[in-house]
Amino acid sequence: MIALFTDFGFAGPYVGQMRAVLAQQAPAVPVIDLFADLPPFDAMGAAYLLAAYADQWPPGTVFLCVVDPGVGGDRRALHLAADGRHFVGPDNGLLAIAARRARRTAWRAVTWRPDRLSASFHGRDLFAPVAARLARGEAVESEACAAPVGCGWPDDLARVVYVDRYGNAMTGLRGGNLTPDAVLAVGSPGEGGQEIRRARTFSAVPIGSAFWYENANGLAEIAVNQGRADHALGLAPGTAVTVLAG
Amino acid sequence: MIALFTDFGFAGPYVGQMRAVLAQQAPAVPVIDLFADLPPFDAMGAAYLLAAYADQWPPGTVFLCVVDPGVGGDRRALHLAADGRHFVGPDNGLLAIAARRARRTAWRAVTWRPDRLSASFHGRDLFAPVAARLARGEAVESEACAAPVGCGWPDDLARVVYVDRYGNAMTGLRGGNLTPDAVLAVGSPGEGGQEIRRARTFSAVPIGSAFWYENANGLAEIAVNQGRADHALGLAPGTAVTVLAG
Amino acid sequence: MIALFTDFGFAGPYVGQMRAVLAQQAPAVPVIDLFADLPPFDAMGAAYLLAAYADQWPPGTVFLCVVDPGVGGDRRALHLAADGRHFVGPDNGLLAIAARRARRTAWRAVTWRPDRLSASFHGRDLFAPVAARLARGEAVESEACAAPVGCGWPDDLARVVYVDRYGNAMTGLRGGNLTPDAVLAVGSPGEGGQEIRRARTFSAVPIGSAFWYENANGLAEIAVNQGRADHALGLAPGTAVTVLAG
Repeated sequence: MIALFTDFGFAGPYVGQMRAVLAQQAPAVPVIDLFADLPPFDAMGAAYLLAAYADQWPPGTVFLCVVDPGVGGDRRALHLAADGRHFVGPDNGLLAIAARRARRTAWRAVTWRPDRLSASFHGRDLFAPVAARLARGEAVESEACAAPVGCGWPDDLARVVYVDRYGNAMTGLRGGNLTPDAVLAVGSPGEGGQEIRRARTFSAVPIGSAFWYENANGLAEIAVNQGRADHALGLAPGTAVTVLAG
Repeated sequence: MIALFTDFGFAGPYVGQMRAVLAQQAPAVPVIDLFADLPPFDAMGAAYLLAAYADQWPPGTVFLCVVDPGVGGDRRALHLAADGRHFVGPDNGLLAIAARRARRTAWRAVTWRPDRLSASFHGRDLFAPVAARLARGEAVESEACAAPVGCGWPDDLARVVYVDRYGNAMTGLRGGNLTPDAVLAVGSPGEGGQEIRRARTFSAVPIGSAFWYENANGLAEIAVNQGRADHALGLAPGTAVTVLAG
Repeated sequence: MIALFTDFGFAGPYVGQMRAVLAQQAPAVPVIDLFADLPPFDAMGAAYLLAAYADQWPPGTVFLCVVDPGVGGDRRALHLAADGRHFVGPDNGLLAIAARRARRTAWRAVTWRPDRLSASFHGRDLFAPVAARLARGEAVESEACAAPVGCGWPDDLARVVYVDRYGNAMTGLRGGNLTPDAVLAVGSPGEGGQEIRRARTFSAVPIGSAFWYENANGLAEIAVNQGRADHALGLAPGTAVTVLAG
């Protein structure tokens, strides 16, 4: 299986062009969009999403990861093997937290290059062909790779990393690392800042109430039952979150 | 074939995670998004869409239906067999109108539960595995089911149930139940309310004119030729529609 | 392979209903969304996108093209064979530039009609079945076709034809037809008009700077490094672009 993890959005031709490459070069492999609408250019936030959302996919899955504001510059292209899964993407930290959470990892800098490499769309020209080859079980030309970006990033990230269609705000904090009575604060105390307590799920609080919960992939997520937490609390990707207790 | 019918939106990881489950558990079955962007939490409106849009799919299709504001509470999980098609979803009325329109129906409450059931994402953990099993032709543990929600809902629903990308507003009314000279009214008379007459299709009215027509799936739909009916007439999911004549 | 090229948007049931037809009538053929969110009703702008984006797909690909404001009227349905690829769509110019760029072309007016043809959704009822038959290698009833719409359109189109998720504005101009020092102007000189110079790619200019570049499919595209060109420069589909030099 190949999982697409990008900030391309579904709009436009980008995901389709990558899929066309994969359909030609790995025709028997199912291709699934994990995230297509990651916050643009935010490789750090996306790294915490990837670590949380890659966890349940079967061994052998290849994650084709593109949040790549440095495309066309000199950043490296990476291949990470981690606990039987493969990750392909730019060296900007995007793969760093998935590696941190794995037991066995191997980093490689991909040296293979296609005959034609555009300056702006390595997702199609470089990363997709590499993912197709890995999905077919073939080797890709690469070399040893020291110190990928993101090695020093924290275990958990105390900010909003994604807001979904319902207005729920995923953070880079893991619910399992917070006690049941942990309180999350957003905004400034005394200036409209809010303190948010934990609930098990949506139907456990009144309609319109804000709460946080451990979402189905283990992240602490701020939500309002049948409302929009982003509007109610002023949340967007990048909004800082403070753990007040727990 | 498995048809996805949800309010998840394409944004975020939700549809992809359901597809990953289906790719593993029913790998030979094509999976198609029928609706991914149903109005959030509106199980009633979605029920009239499902009845209209499920009609033309081939026998054996499994509709995986998730508009589920009550997830994590005690609402039942349902399996409806109707005229050779299968529907899986929460017991909140979402499947009720599809059943109403069928000749032969059988309702079951699904009692099977996965080893790991999250509190907030039954689409992935419960409904998708059930759909995969039905698509493979296997039985699912279940029990007889009395009085599913929605049994008393009307045959047609006189309000907007969906606004599409062009600003066209689908109603829960069926065009075949309205006479050719039926007039639909939205808003209050004397306060900007509008009366809308029928046309056969877009190119039958001048550019910029509002009309209603029986759409390609039988619903009465309010549109403006090469314009946006939602903006021009103030329409959104939930807007009441009155049938003045016909 | 079948490539979908439409202005339906992913929202709503339209793409899914076409996919359901294709899954039944050409089950072994991969179906990929090339563009689903073309600017609504803009067949002319889409024609320049199609020519640029169809180029790299393998021989035998069938492009199912629907930007069709005249649906339900008397416009013809076309089949274009061009250099081993097939294009199916309405006779409103949508296929014209793809034909212009090809070495060998054959135009046919499709005379086949389905048993049931809705007035508003020929994508599902007419164009998708025709595409499925072509993808299976079968003939489709058709007749010779003179003078399709768009034969007189210019080789390149000096306006914005698409704005992507990042706010980048694709034009209908080809980068290869412009010299390296070509300057593109948008807006009126002296009234906030801007002159935009070429760069090789995003990382070649400072963050926040506007530039144009030849995108990965050969079109001149106006962008801001890690910013939104559409907001910064007031660009939308249809915005005129002037080539000042080069």
